[in-house]
Amino acid sequence: MNSDNFNLSEKIVSPSYIRQGSQARRGHEQLIRQLLEQGKCPEEGWSESTVELFLSELAVMDSNNFLGNCGVGEREGRVASSLVARRHYRLIHGIGRSGDIAAIQPKAAGSSLLNKLTNSVVLDVLKLAGVRSVASCFVVPMATGMSLTLCFLTLRHRRPKARYIIWPRIDQKSCFKSMITCFTLLLTVFSGFEPVVVENVLEGDELRTDLEAVERKIEELGAENILCVHSTTSCFAPRVPDRLEELSSLCSKHDIPHIVNNAYGVQSSKCMHLIQQGARVGRIDAFVQSLDKNFMVPVGGAIIAGFDESFIQEISKMYPGRASASPSLDVLITLLTLGVCGYKKYLSERKEIYSFLAEQLKSLASAHGERLLHTPHNPISLAMSLDGLQANSDKAVTQLGSMLFTRQVSGARVIPLGKEQTVSGHTFRGFMSHSESYPCPYLNAASAVGITREDVTVCIKRLDKCLKTLKKEGEESRDMRL
Amino acid sequence: MNSDNFNLSEKIVSPSYIRQGSQARRGHEQLIRQLLEQGKCPEEGWSESTVELFLSELAVMDSNNFLGNCGVGEREGRVASSLVARRHYRLIHGIGRSGDIAAIQPKAAGSSLLNKLTNSVVLDVLKLAGVRSVASCFVVPMATGMSLTLCFLTLRHRRPKARYIIWPRIDQKSCFKSMITCFTLLLTVFSGFEPVVVENVLEGDELRTDLEAVERKIEELGAENILCVHSTTSCFAPRVPDRLEELSSLCSKHDIPHIVNNAYGVQSSKCMHLIQQGARVGRIDAFVQSLDKNFMVPVGGAIIAGFDESFIQEISKMYPGRASASPSLDVLITLLTLGVCGYKKYLSERKEIYSFLAEQLKSLASAHGERLLHTPHNPISLAMSLDGLQANSDKAVTQLGSMLFTRQVSGARVIPLGKEQTVSGHTFRGFMSHSESYPCPYLNAASAVGITREDVTVCIKRLDKCLKTLKKEGEESRDMRL
Amino acid sequence: MNSDNFNLSEKIVSPSYIRQGSQARRGHEQLIRQLLEQGKCPEEGWSESTVELFLSELAVMDSNNFLGNCGVGEREGRVASSLVARRHYRLIHGIGRSGDIAAIQPKAAGSSLLNKLTNSVVLDVLKLAGVRSVASCFVVPMATGMSLTLCFLTLRHRRPKARYIIWPRIDQKSCFKSMITCFTLLLTVFSGFEPVVVENVLEGDELRTDLEAVERKIEELGAENILCVHSTTSCFAPRVPDRLEELSSLCSKHDIPHIVNNAYGVQSSKCMHLIQQGARVGRIDAFVQSLDKNFMVPVGGAIIAGFDESFIQEISKMYPGRASASPSLDVLITLLTLGVCGYKKYLSERKEIYSFLAEQLKSLASAHGERLLHTPHNPISLAMSLDGLQANSDKAVTQLGSMLFTRQVSGARVIPLGKEQTVSGHTFRGFMSHSESYPCPYLNAASAVGITREDVTVCIKRLDKCLKTLKKEGEESRDMRL
Amino acid sequence: MNSDNFNLSEKIVSPSYIRQGSQARRGHEQLIRQLLEQGKCPEEGWSESTVELFLSELAVMDSNNFLGNCGVGEREGRVASSLVARRHYRLIHGIGRSGDIAAIQPKAAGSSLLNKLTNSVVLDVLKLAGVRSVASCFVVPMATGMSLTLCFLTLRHRRPKARYIIWPRIDQKSCFKSMITCFTLLLTVFSGFEPVVVENVLEGDELRTDLEAVERKIEELGAENILCVHSTTSCFAPRVPDRLEELSSLCSKHDIPHIVNNAYGVQSSKCMHLIQQGARVGRIDAFVQSLDKNFMVPVGGAIIAGFDESFIQEISKMYPGRASASPSLDVLITLLTLGVCGYKKYLSERKEIYSFLAEQLKSLASAHGERLLHTPHNPISLAMSLDGLQANSDKAVTQLGSMLFTRQVSGARVIPLGKEQTVSGHTFRGFMSHSESYPCPYLNAASAVGITREDVTVCIKRLDKCLKTLKKEGEESRDMRL
Repeated sequence: MNSDNFNLSEKIVSPSYIRQGSQARRGHEQLIRQLLEQGKCPEEGWSESTVELFLSELAVMDSNNFLGNCGVGEREGRVASSLVARRHYRLIHGIGRSGDIAAIQPKAAGSSLLNKLTNSVVLDVLKLAGVRSVASCFVVPMATGMSLTLCFLTLRHRRPKARYIIWPRIDQKSCFKSMITCFTLLLTVFSGFEPVVVENVLEGDELRTDLEAVERKIEELGAENILCVHSTTSCFAPRVPDRLEELSSLCSKHDIPHIVNNAYGVQSSKCMHLIQQGARVGRIDAFVQSLDKNFMVPVGGAIIAGFDESFIQEISKMYPGRASASPSLDVLITLLTLGVCGYKKYLSERKEIYSFLAEQLKSLASAHGERLLHTPHNPISLAMSLDGLQANSDKAVTQLGSMLFTRQVSGARVIPLGKEQTVSGHTFRGFMSHSESYPCPYLNAASAVGITREDVTVCIKRLDKCLKTLKKEGEESRDMRL
Repeated sequence: MNSDNFNLSEKIVSPSYIRQGSQARRGHEQLIRQLLEQGKCPEEGWSESTVELFLSELAVMDSNNFLGNCGVGEREGRVASSLVARRHYRLIHGIGRSGDIAAIQPKAAGSSLLNKLTNSVVLDVLKLAGVRSVASCFVVPMATGMSLTLCFLTLRHRRPKARYIIWPRIDQKSCFKSMITCFTLLLTVFSGFEPVVVENVLEGDELRTDLEAVERKIEELGAENILCVHSTTSCFAPRVPDRLEELSSLCSKHDIPHIVNNAYGVQSSKCMHLIQQGARVGRIDAFVQSLDKNFMVPVGGAIIAGFDESFIQEISKMYPGRASASPSLDVLITLLTLGVCGYKKYLSERKEIYSFLAEQLKSLASAHGERLLHTPHNPISLAMSLDGLQANSDKAVTQLGSMLFTRQVSGARVIPLGKEQTVSGHTFRGFMSHSESYPCPYLNAASAVGITREDVTVCIKRLDKCLKTLKKEGEESRDMRL
Repeated sequence: MNSDNFNLSEKIVSPSYIRQGSQARRGHEQLIRQLLEQGKCPEEGWSESTVELFLSELAVMDSNNFLGNCGVGEREGRVASSLVARRHYRLIHGIGRSGDIAAIQPKAAGSSLLNKLTNSVVLDVLKLAGVRSVASCFVVPMATGMSLTLCFLTLRHRRPKARYIIWPRIDQKSCFKSMITCFTLLLTVFSGFEPVVVENVLEGDELRTDLEAVERKIEELGAENILCVHSTTSCFAPRVPDRLEELSSLCSKHDIPHIVNNAYGVQSSKCMHLIQQGARVGRIDAFVQSLDKNFMVPVGGAIIAGFDESFIQEISKMYPGRASASPSLDVLITLLTLGVCGYKKYLSERKEIYSFLAEQLKSLASAHGERLLHTPHNPISLAMSLDGLQANSDKAVTQLGSMLFTRQVSGARVIPLGKEQTVSGHTFRGFMSHSESYPCPYLNAASAVGITREDVTVCIKRLDKCLKTLKKEGEESRDMRL
Repeated sequence: MNSDNFNLSEKIVSPSYIRQGSQARRGHEQLIRQLLEQGKCPEEGWSESTVELFLSELAVMDSNNFLGNCGVGEREGRVASSLVARRHYRLIHGIGRSGDIAAIQPKAAGSSLLNKLTNSVVLDVLKLAGVRSVASCFVVPMATGMSLTLCFLTLRHRRPKARYIIWPRIDQKSCFKSMITCFTLLLTVFSGFEPVVVENVLEGDELRTDLEAVERKIEELGAENILCVHSTTSCFAPRVPDRLEELSSLCSKHDIPHIVNNAYGVQSSKCMHLIQQGARVGRIDAFVQSLDKNFMVPVGGAIIAGFDESFIQEISKMYPGRASASPSLDVLITLLTLGVCGYKKYLSERKEIYSFLAEQLKSLASAHGERLLHTPHNPISLAMSLDGLQANSDKAVTQLGSMLFTRQVSGARVIPLGKEQTVSGHTFRGFMSHSESYPCPYLNAASAVGITREDVTVCIKRLDKCLKTLKKEGEESRDMRL
């Protein structure tokens, strides 16, 4: 309420109590003030009541909530369902305008503020998470893949002749029992370029970037014909993050753009450090990360960030049309509620549980005659060999996958010894294992942000049970055959 | 947001858009201002967004929402469940204080404002609904019965010697198949007084107050021994509202307090007019009405109103302890959302549908050889005779009740030819029919606020079907017996 | 969804995934099943999604949510505002019926279930909290005071001649700067009885029940003329809980009912133990506790409990009319969400913080030349002397109260050396201090359920500052005078 | 609740009431059943309680809500903020999978059902709205522009050599005072193709497709070099919808794909009829429409629809990565709540208000010496000449725009006599008017779905006032100059 209304209230309820109430209101205003002034994630999280007060203030500034508005346009932010209006806090106009997702909307000052503040708060968190010199970023209501595509399409304008995207191999398959897809490859093809896959090298148990092979490819194809190098940080073990520092230097040396897929890397200081270092010593044009995987919000948003503000702006101007404010709203609510402290607490818990998961998997592995693969460069994902299981029965490895699914262990991936797979014309040997011939089948488990100790304990218990069952079955079927 | 924050926003989003947003905010503030200034129900209903903005402003003024508060008392408005906090808009402290439900709470300026404004808005609506000279009222989080009790207990202090409550007979039974209760009687007994039941007189089909019998009782018992006359407006046909004008004059003449049970009478201009007239020509000390039945809010609140502010205050000080703000909150939200226009629209629709229901019942009755009882003084409830049904079979009348229940016709009451019933030592002949020997069994249906044309149409259709079925069964069983 | 709908879903989405979803649903059903079967508070708290699923299941069973319902009664659970409907989870019919708050409503099977289950779950928690032999209880939507009144009114029917309520003195004043009220006294008067105040005895720093004086009063007035003894557990130090064991024996010996005000005693195992012991060795007819103070829900509900099921039922039948379901809903949501574990965790934290608060107050006191009063029998409230402050300046003690209020320290009470006060005709010397002449002024602070360590730390810091400021001011004004 | 739990409930509350409640539950299940069985928009809208029950059933089937789930993946649907979880009804996993936005997610059976059902219900509504033979569609969480891009990129795979997109000119500028953009042009460039602009012909007041020019261009460039014809239905008057029938025949004849931008055309039976006819007599590969403009949901979603299921599937597989479920959820809630009846009611009201707006504008125009342009082929947008205003003063036309903005008339566009504008290298004469030299300046107003009579009345009143003010100012300034 404004001061007039507080004055009127003093006539109804004792002035001293109203004055205390009005002073309390200033406490909330003060928090909002800091946000508007600094554009940073608050140190301490806001209470839900401050968050909702702020959102209702924003909504009031959008024309669809003007009490005296009359609309004769084709897009007036009308909402038919009150359930829908409510769940969006009456912020209906989305973000951006035709031709620039970062643009301000005349009809929606509140939504425009939301958009600007979200990008600003997210930028602050990217810095705190380790990429201290990041210059600009924006949230897009598209998943990581579509966001990477937007980066590639933007580069095309700068490098009209370039046709190739160099891509150190990384295999992604979302889940057992489903059609195998090689996501990153599809993505390159989708953008209208030709992907150039560079196989990884095996160092100990780890699969790492083959820098020499990359450089050879660059020289072979000619730097001017290469749209960009497309590297990856967060990935499933035994693949480890690409050697970003060296790749960035290579790109800088050959004057080739460099786009990093940092999918769920914000949660790991190691991944963020790689990007920070890459940009310091060499060239990184943009890095893209998922909102949901890093900030525990619903699927459907990504952050496109970079070190050159004008290039990031160029990308934002490539998005044709205004867009959903939903992912921005989700991440803003989340970060305001958590505050820097809350988010850092999540990150440090994740790190601790990573160690706990590693220990637990290690002892489970040794109990079953397997071993935890040694992948110290991967800060999130771990892998445990399944040699013994494989030896026991051919089908046992895939069977383990199904068993875990049925027992509500989600996210544990089982990778059998690879088979050949053809994706968009490219044939991959050893598909799913990032390598033509990884030495053993294995199981992945990850410590991702938001994980709890109980997740690990329960997972290990169920995994143990499954392995025992499979072993027994294997023995029985062997006995039968004898 | 305050002006500082709007200024800061202008640096982020174009000043002209922010200025328009800030102007739009003033629109909401203006509505709140009017409410605070006038304490009246707004003419036009508020949008949900204004209502919620206002409630969040109130909540911010309560100490449990102070950002810097520290609490070391035994009652600090802490809430364990966020579902609970949210559903109460974080208004946790209730209303009133030990010893006065209308008192202001130092810890809760917002809740105190809510309480005062609700009472003020409700008072305004009582005036608009027809009791123009009402002087004071307050909402209590108790149902009508408990609220009447509170009035009786307050009167005791004024009339320490009085023992009797004179009560023109009215029978209430909530539903078939359940334990029969005579609510008003219990209530009198509960308050520690002796009820003096005065039977009604039959005028045409109507059961009306026997004024002479009331006066005889007064003279017989001695005015000084009578706590009050307890009369009723809204009731089931063929009972009609008490003759309030005459009863009020009687009370005035004999200097006896008069308490009116106006349970669901706010919705009827006739009932309200009776109260207004009674107070004008005679004496009405308080009239009590249900919140849920008149304002379409959840069960559990009532309004105690009267023409002498000091007496109403005395009642409010009788309520020991602070109380739930929930009914106040519900009725305030409802009235702000509806506005005077919206509420009046409901009232006029109710009236129209009353006529529609009368017509429909009339033609249904004549189709089945029954008739609509002629009860022009009852503006809400109607009754249709069930003579034929009764003739058909003894059990048919009660059976009709069960059939309607099963077919999801709710609120239709079936009154068989009365039996004797003893309630708290009093024996009632013809119980449920407000009369020792009403001439026929009947069925009640009411047009209460919020009813729709479809309610009537569907009810008539199902009722028709039930009557046909019963008729057929009756004939078949008669055939069987032959 | 029912099995038909799951089967249909399998045609749209892979059967194995739907089957897993349907199995997951059974997990929620299983929790609901346990609740229905055992009527107990679940050991582990439910997730919000289970709670909301359950509430929507209940709502679906109420006639106002029937899809095919047509209503022609005067009370159909219609709701005008969707904000209101939503905040009550569409449970509109309240609880109970005319004449019994525990009765089942034919129109509202869901609300009836809610009511029964809440009472059952609350009974379970009362047992766990220490009154193991409690037989019956119910939630009423009235504050503690009104609930005690209901108990007294019920007793009247059993003891029609009785006029006195014996009451070991306890002073309650809600807050400085407001009208002083003596709540319990008013309450007795309100119920139509004469209160007989028995002064406390000073034992060390503690004010305790004067058992001999109580017995003297009983003999003086005659047991048959006494409605009941009205004792108290939770109270402000240096008053300590009444000697329940001895009082109960006395009541048993003289055949006098005994009603205990256990306002915020559920949170303390000591208070609950006193009741359990009292009932074991003597007589306790009912004990009444606040919902909000013990279960962190909004103000406005209480629990009436006792050891004789039929007496508790008799009380529930005294409540005239159906009532708000809001307090029942709040406490059910809260207990289902917390579970036994969650609630016990709150209780043990409260106990720990009580010790912490005691320590902190002790060292603060000694730093300022005051002392923590020794009141080991009071498990919740503490008191620190203010002798020095008083010596410094006459007004300093009350000034401290205002200063704390302004600095958002809520719940700290300051008790100056007593003055005389007349309440409802009774004159109290030393009012507010439970005693005619307590030796020193003091300040109260309590460790009540939901308190945090930070509450204590901040309170002590602010208190320290205030005391220093007052000391300085005192010295300056003394200097001025010199 | 399942039948076990209903049985248990019968032991707590009377069986007959519980049975009625359980039967009532079946009513909701029955509605869900129809939806699952038929996949169609329900005839009558669902109550909010059915909608929320259904959504909570879906949520329960997603693994993030499994009570016993343990997650060790990198994407587990964890949510940090309960505000966020709640606003998405705990449906967190989004829709689709890497590489197919229509794919089923093993971790999220509920979200997968949501996705399938939404697409099915939307398809049903497209049919009802007039494109009876539409074969397939899907909702994408991207605005119309990005969705058109997706179509173009998909066509590239089929026509690798094609470089041109033929585009009958249509100018879009979102709002006065902002950077002028030509959205459709940018879009074509963004997709990596060369736009070929074909100027419109003036027929009466209308600007219509120059069919001969289109055919000339096709022959000039060679059909095989043309990616597609990109036509438009809904547009600002005096531009009228493209001659879809003839364009479709042309495309069919020359074997060129045809993509229709049907931005806000679903709301107009005329636009839908054009598409239906186009597909019947010729070739339409896909038509794209905005969710927010047609279904009154927040900005950020579109529907891609077509007549060949396999082509539409191909497009859905082009979307790399899973996506936000938010737009799907919004449109599903909206359509279930409205039902076919509700949506049709909106459409017929829109049509009526179009006539009302035309009348009102006509009489306003004649009062000010202007005229309503005769554009009978445009069913949504109207234009009123501003010749007189222009004559009065050069700046008056743009000034009118600002005045309307300040007076909260949103959506009214003012088009001054065109200037030259260069967009992405293309120079447009008469920019904003869809024509190199439209004869007069004008003002647009549209009757779009959800508009009310009051919008029109208020708009006309304010417009009248503005025109009067400008006239007066013009006269005064002329007087000054004299």
